[in-house]
Amino acid sequence: MTTLLTRQEAIALDQSDPFAGKRQEFALEDGKIYLCGNSLGPMPKRVVETVHNTLTEDWAKGLITSQNTAGWWLLSDTLGNRLAALLGADAEEVVVSDSTGLNIYKTLHAALSMQSGRNTIVSELSSFPTDLYMIEGVASLLNHVNIKLAGRDADTIEQLIDDDTAVVLVNQVDYRSGEICDIKSLTALAHSHGALVISDVCHSAGAIPVNFHEENVDFAVGCMYKYLNGGPGAPAFVYAAKRHHGKFKQPLTGWHGHAEPFKFEPGYRAAQGANAFLTGTQPTLSQVAMSAGLDVIADVDMHDLYDKGKRLSEIFANLIEHWCTSYGIGFYSPKDVNKRNGQVSLTHQNGYSIIQALIARGVTGDFRQPNIMRFGITPLFLRYVDVWDAAHHLKEVLETNEWQEERFNRKNLVT
Amino acid sequence: MTTLLTRQEAIALDQSDPFAGKRQEFALEDGKIYLCGNSLGPMPKRVVETVHNTLTEDWAKGLITSQNTAGWWLLSDTLGNRLAALLGADAEEVVVSDSTGLNIYKTLHAALSMQSGRNTIVSELSSFPTDLYMIEGVASLLNHVNIKLAGRDADTIEQLIDDDTAVVLVNQVDYRSGEICDIKSLTALAHSHGALVISDVCHSAGAIPVNFHEENVDFAVGCMYKYLNGGPGAPAFVYAAKRHHGKFKQPLTGWHGHAEPFKFEPGYRAAQGANAFLTGTQPTLSQVAMSAGLDVIADVDMHDLYDKGKRLSEIFANLIEHWCTSYGIGFYSPKDVNKRNGQVSLTHQNGYSIIQALIARGVTGDFRQPNIMRFGITPLFLRYVDVWDAAHHLKEVLETNEWQEERFNRKNLVT
Repeated sequence: MTTLLTRQEAIALDQSDPFAGKRQEFALEDGKIYLCGNSLGPMPKRVVETVHNTLTEDWAKGLITSQNTAGWWLLSDTLGNRLAALLGADAEEVVVSDSTGLNIYKTLHAALSMQSGRNTIVSELSSFPTDLYMIEGVASLLNHVNIKLAGRDADTIEQLIDDDTAVVLVNQVDYRSGEICDIKSLTALAHSHGALVISDVCHSAGAIPVNFHEENVDFAVGCMYKYLNGGPGAPAFVYAAKRHHGKFKQPLTGWHGHAEPFKFEPGYRAAQGANAFLTGTQPTLSQVAMSAGLDVIADVDMHDLYDKGKRLSEIFANLIEHWCTSYGIGFYSPKDVNKRNGQVSLTHQNGYSIIQALIARGVTGDFRQPNIMRFGITPLFLRYVDVWDAAHHLKEVLETNEWQEERFNRKNLVT
Repeated sequence: MTTLLTRQEAIALDQSDPFAGKRQEFALEDGKIYLCGNSLGPMPKRVVETVHNTLTEDWAKGLITSQNTAGWWLLSDTLGNRLAALLGADAEEVVVSDSTGLNIYKTLHAALSMQSGRNTIVSELSSFPTDLYMIEGVASLLNHVNIKLAGRDADTIEQLIDDDTAVVLVNQVDYRSGEICDIKSLTALAHSHGALVISDVCHSAGAIPVNFHEENVDFAVGCMYKYLNGGPGAPAFVYAAKRHHGKFKQPLTGWHGHAEPFKFEPGYRAAQGANAFLTGTQPTLSQVAMSAGLDVIADVDMHDLYDKGKRLSEIFANLIEHWCTSYGIGFYSPKDVNKRNGQVSLTHQNGYSIIQALIARGVTGDFRQPNIMRFGITPLFLRYVDVWDAAHHLKEVLETNEWQEERFNRKNLVT
């Protein structure tokens, strides 16, 4: 894009946007621009009725029999089946359970259990910290494990993969920058050395086209409450490629992962497929709410959605580059829109205060240490005019030094 | 009790019951008698509004900022604080997180991490299976661990405890029979041998007076969706005695358990107190719903409530003994009401069909292999007339051979 898009042109783009109707499926307040859908997706309107029915019919009246009659017992499976269709997997390869961190723990153990004689876990220092903490947790129990991290032990993750590599844990999209890893090439490299790959898709699932079969990853973990709009703290998911079914072990052996849980046997026998990653009882209300998020995205072609996301992202970045770089704003995300998941991360030494000033104007982004302002671009509900206006607000906040006001100078716990 | 209580006398007991008002706080259908509160507690009416507000205000409008403004980020703590008050613990000793099984895994590792040189986990073959599966999971990683089970390696758990015992994992109440373990004496015995004790309070918390400080247990885990009416699949809780804070390690090291999660450090440093048992993001809707269950029980004296439970349990058992034993009904629960948590478990070779016939009459109990009919006695919402009527229904089902009808002969997945 060489000429600067006008607000009127942005509005015109919205009028011809095939996804324009999707916005109506979310509860979004007028006059607010929500650029944290990469952190917590907005509420699908239908969730209110879905959850109300679960409370007043299934819980209040069905009581324990709703485990069968309302399908509660099978929600980890049925939600997994729906996700599988979205992520290029077969139904029996995906289940919804626990948190991303716990699923990382399980898949790391699973991969190591298949890699006798190999001792090294390869990952990235820039990973979301839970990934690194879980690697530590696994290694603390298995005293032969080495950990090698890109950004500490070498520049790139590719440089660390060799014939001693047991498993590579990689974020398909970097949470700070939105940068996309070429997971297919990385997996091919890892496989050529006999290593297995766990793909953390927290910031890619629902944002860019994800296809576990095409990418050929061995395991994957991901989050429902970001781009999949599953609600606050929605349980996470885990993928296990069919070729590994029945061949791995993981130590979080709860009764939901048992082959026949209602036999109440004293000994553990793992369930089939990805169900071997199930553990204990899952939070039904949060699982039910998640289904509403899947309803909204189920009929979407992810390539088309990502194309809209890239256009939004490019417009936003282009306006900022034109309007804001003279105020000390830098780009943390890749400049090439094809290399990022839509998210635009900027740097400024006063980033924290700038984000607070934007929030006060109704534009929600977030801040990450040390100086990163993250703006999630989520094309399922964002309009072209939203990103235009958001960029314009940033311009005004910088022009007027509004961010220097005392009220924007305090620290919050979570942004 | 020697003379048989009449229905009229049961109604009179309800009229003078100080807990009679509590029933009104639950959504319970007229004409139904719910004896599965030991499996899934009924719905507190107030939960409907609580969850509705969380959806339509906190999620829909507050969005990500509700992590702070609605207290989402701290729910594991704030719910833990409220539970601590109910269970004889200090606020910093209890957190709400994950499932019971995962908390067993964490506490087993925590206990073992403090017991260098000791190699044996002692538990019971009659445990809820997840407890045993998690012991297997832990032992699969630590090749020096021995497992000794009462009911397999000796008659009683006491006989297995010796100076090699690292940790004793015990169910305070047996899930099949409702039998109460004298956890205080068992803990004293274990401590005299230098062993640590993990108490699984899934079937005691909210049913009988539980006081972690008086019992002197080292760790405890428990469930919110049974006697604490936290809703289907509500997250579980974990207790760590203050004397052990900072002294144990557990390998599920997620970012919520980090001392300073928002520093996003690459290395893990455990949080203080029981917070070292936190892992990943928790399901907010299910956590919020749980708070409504705690609202209902928060002002209850657990000794008084258990006294009512024992009277209900004794009336129910007495009527059944008088009316039903000639039809082949046996008692699986302890005959002494002081030795059970209220629950009355009966045996009959056609127990499955009898339970189905009772459900068809509006009396919900459940069946456990091979021949156990469980009737949960939950005094917070059950009336004296309910247990009288339930016993009478059982009498009629047996007298008329109603349970032999074909429709009661099929298998369901969950009861």
